Amino acid sequence: MDAGGLDANGIARSLGGNPQTGPFYIEGAMPGDAIAITFSRIRLNRDSAQSGRWLVPNDVTPLYFKSATIDTNLTPESRLDRQAGYAVLAKPTPALRDYRVPLAPSLGGVGVAPRGGEAISTQSLGAFGGNMDYNQLREGVTVYLPVFVPGALVFLGDGHAAQGDGELNGDALETSMDVEFLVRLIPNGAPLTAAEPGPRFENADWLMASGIGNSLTLALQKATTALVRWVKREYALTDTEAALVLGTRVRYDIAEVADDQMHVVAKIEKTALANRKRQ
Amino acid sequence: MDAGGLDANGIARSLGGNPQTGPFYIEGAMPGDAIAITFSRIRLNRDSAQSGRWLVPNDVTPLYFKSATIDTNLTPESRLDRQAGYAVLAKPTPALRDYRVPLAPSLGGVGVAPRGGEAISTQSLGAFGGNMDYNQLREGVTVYLPVFVPGALVFLGDGHAAQGDGELNGDALETSMDVEFLVRLIPNGAPLTAAEPGPRFENADWLMASGIGNSLTLALQKATTALVRWVKREYALTDTEAALVLGTRVRYDIAEVADDQMHVVAKIEKTALANRKRQ
Amino acid sequence: MDAGGLDANGIARSLGGNPQTGPFYIEGAMPGDAIAITFSRIRLNRDSAQSGRWLVPNDVTPLYFKSATIDTNLTPESRLDRQAGYAVLAKPTPALRDYRVPLAPSLGGVGVAPRGGEAISTQSLGAFGGNMDYNQLREGVTVYLPVFVPGALVFLGDGHAAQGDGELNGDALETSMDVEFLVRLIPNGAPLTAAEPGPRFENADWLMASGIGNSLTLALQKATTALVRWVKREYALTDTEAALVLGTRVRYDIAEVADDQMHVVAKIEKTALANRKRQ
Amino acid sequence: MDAGGLDANGIARSLGGNPQTGPFYIEGAMPGDAIAITFSRIRLNRDSAQSGRWLVPNDVTPLYFKSATIDTNLTPESRLDRQAGYAVLAKPTPALRDYRVPLAPSLGGVGVAPRGGEAISTQSLGAFGGNMDYNQLREGVTVYLPVFVPGALVFLGDGHAAQGDGELNGDALETSMDVEFLVRLIPNGAPLTAAEPGPRFENADWLMASGIGNSLTLALQKATTALVRWVKREYALTDTEAALVLGTRVRYDIAEVADDQMHVVAKIEKTALANRKRQ
Repeated sequence: MDAGGLDANGIARSLGGNPQTGPFYIEGAMPGDAIAITFSRIRLNRDSAQSGRWLVPNDVTPLYFKSATIDTNLTPESRLDRQAGYAVLAKPTPALRDYRVPLAPSLGGVGVAPRGGEAISTQSLGAFGGNMDYNQLREGVTVYLPVFVPGALVFLGDGHAAQGDGELNGDALETSMDVEFLVRLIPNGAPLTAAEPGPRFENADWLMASGIGNSLTLALQKATTALVRWVKREYALTDTEAALVLGTRVRYDIAEVADDQMHVVAKIEKTALANRKRQ
Repeated sequence: MDAGGLDANGIARSLGGNPQTGPFYIEGAMPGDAIAITFSRIRLNRDSAQSGRWLVPNDVTPLYFKSATIDTNLTPESRLDRQAGYAVLAKPTPALRDYRVPLAPSLGGVGVAPRGGEAISTQSLGAFGGNMDYNQLREGVTVYLPVFVPGALVFLGDGHAAQGDGELNGDALETSMDVEFLVRLIPNGAPLTAAEPGPRFENADWLMASGIGNSLTLALQKATTALVRWVKREYALTDTEAALVLGTRVRYDIAEVADDQMHVVAKIEKTALANRKRQ
Repeated sequence: MDAGGLDANGIARSLGGNPQTGPFYIEGAMPGDAIAITFSRIRLNRDSAQSGRWLVPNDVTPLYFKSATIDTNLTPESRLDRQAGYAVLAKPTPALRDYRVPLAPSLGGVGVAPRGGEAISTQSLGAFGGNMDYNQLREGVTVYLPVFVPGALVFLGDGHAAQGDGELNGDALETSMDVEFLVRLIPNGAPLTAAEPGPRFENADWLMASGIGNSLTLALQKATTALVRWVKREYALTDTEAALVLGTRVRYDIAEVADDQMHVVAKIEKTALANRKRQ
Repeated sequence: MDAGGLDANGIARSLGGNPQTGPFYIEGAMPGDAIAITFSRIRLNRDSAQSGRWLVPNDVTPLYFKSATIDTNLTPESRLDRQAGYAVLAKPTPALRDYRVPLAPSLGGVGVAPRGGEAISTQSLGAFGGNMDYNQLREGVTVYLPVFVPGALVFLGDGHAAQGDGELNGDALETSMDVEFLVRLIPNGAPLTAAEPGPRFENADWLMASGIGNSLTLALQKATTALVRWVKREYALTDTEAALVLGTRVRYDIAEVADDQMHVVAKIEKTALANRKRQ
């Protein structure tokens, strides 16, 4: 089901506005634990995707926003050629007749029930995960999340056939997909610290720590802090040692700048510390 | 000469504080023009580099900064093995005995004389370039800069043997290097627009537009706007067409978060529009 | 009942964490309407108040926060002398033996049910009002709020005996109070615009427009915009005329910088346009 | 001379762009000292003032900025009635025929030569003062500034007949004025700390500490920190005691949001600690 509520056959199964699948009750999960969700399969299951026509106003300068003309005749719908592995505009303009986007399916949202019994919009993101819109949340990734309520209550949705950094159109190439995942329970929350609970990602190559905050500055501060703490603990380093490692090897992704909260990811290649035993 | 004023032989040639080489007077360059500086050679010329011991306070959370202990006994000096292509700590701690950083020489600073006759610190960056600390300013890149004064007055310095994103230690692996470059004059400023003059970078694979601003938000707004304008002009696209291209293909680099101004780069692979004739 | 759940007699009536009184169902209020809540009485009803011991970390520089020593022996409890009109520390340090704070009772929170069926923390603030912590929300003020659900569902709480701007201690002088208010229904939402719904305040002297946002920049942008729109409509001015009025007469209050959302108020004295008929 | 370079008789004496009067060499002032400039007289000396027609784009929301229509026929020129004490539009629109602004002459700029030999635009502000545009810099105020070069090199300019908070039009009511001031040398910099040098203001009623930073957040952090340090030193308080004082009594002014740097002032009434001996 996509962010507009349409399923694999384009049939409306829900209202729009980022509907989610779930919640899944994780047997035995209690507040203070963490869960690791490994996505063994994230695959497209239909041949069309919707997007937006503009750049989010807060991501361009006021003068450009004032000057820009949005062509409401352009249909921001893509045809997905899953065999060839790319998307094209369903009704392209002459200039974009040959414009092809490599398919790179990712899941816009995965989360747990938030802290304190809040019931909040599926547009939101935070320590609980949610609408993170990170284009590296792809097949093969493991997502670590804190548990705030018994059973964790996992939900997911918002399939993206492809997405640039930041989700600048407000939407990615929104589509539906087939997802398989395995949940592992991590009692007492490791590798999430009490001080900085929040989403972490890991795949074959990278350790990735999310910073989700109300501004890019706060998001970057949280992401850097989450990564430095992770590296300290995982490789038994001091603050200064971990600072040297991040200073030389950190990479940042600007995951999401289209929603109320900003999402920055600080990451490090696992080869960087391959010579050091992981704890 | 490195950021501390030491040359290839480690001999002090200048005061520290980011000394620069230049200015170079570009024959014929007048305000309103642009210049394209192509770096044919950026090579290390000595075997040591200096760095910092901490993470810049504004890049971590206040609570982490308050808790972090800086080990002032750790010597943040690296030995550069130019043959093998990596840096190691000169006096490593046990935990970092096997820590190696792949060498990736980049130039921290290149700029022109700023607008309006200002004489400002070489720690600064802005529309004139300057202390940009972008780890992709590597051999083979072309840097486009606006011209504000007759002769442009190019300067450069601040060699980095390797640098993570953002220059989190306040310093990269600071060292000296041999640099060769060629300057091409672009009358009337193209490909820089009057509305958004600022640094642009191009190499074999990417178009990269700098946004340098007082906050990450402003830097991202400028970078996005500079790239969307560049793509519009270069490929003759409308605002909406360019929005679709960025929405699906933009990548951001957080170049610099260690100085007063923040530096974000918005970039797009040239293959993305390879089917469209460049203007 | 205060923010810790204690009533006029200091007896626990609720869990802490900013409990609220309500909801009050407003007969006839429907989404799209607005309500005007006039507080005819905001009076202290007990003689003690609690506060915090530090300055919120994000409101000082990292270096100051790292250096500051919090004296956990100091009891941040005040005795309220309602006759004389001031608060003193219940157990003062020698240096603050004569420190007196003029009592200025204000209500930290008043709001309606938020948009879209969300159930969110009473620490939150937004277009729906909530934990606004504005020290001018005093006896005699009228608060305008949008209506998102049938009956509006008004709630209020978080009494403050006195509060500096921004609520820098994380808490004000937290106490309980007696409150009387009258609600007037404004069909179709005036004076709140559809484009910028949000809290407005008015008393005998001032028009005050809230901007509640994720950063101070966004809060200021919203506050300025809400005030310029209010002034345009209320006094039938053009954009340029209203810009001249704000440029010469606007005053800002930084209401709240201690919670996740920032709260800035843009205000103008009603005498400024006393010569112009209000619409 | 006003910000456009016109003198008391409206005759051009300088290029526009915020020309300044000075520099004044302060005998004996050395780096590490501070100076206290007391303005005994800040008086208007002509009957006209210029302003701007719009609200600075970054101070309103993108959607409002996109929608706003600027009336370029409106002449933003004021006639100053110094006897009656107000300004009126020289060529008012019908709606603003009776619009009067109380005259409140303030000095937009006062500063010293910046640190490190920089020669920067008179649009800039910073630790050295400069284009601070604070509407409380009025007759009777004392401004404390750090000294960075021998003789301090004081300059001043940018007279404002009246200005709302923030200088939202980009300009205040720009005019020329007669200024008299007295400079007192404060060896070794008190009351400015080495850690947070920056402008301070004091008048009969208030202690006011400037925070000038690249974003509103940084400006507020600096202002709060400067005030808490000032209060600690001036009244011999601990961090916790000073936190209680600020939490109950601080007021903020948003001085300037129209230039590259933001200017926030944290202030406290001197009566708040009148019972405590000042050091």
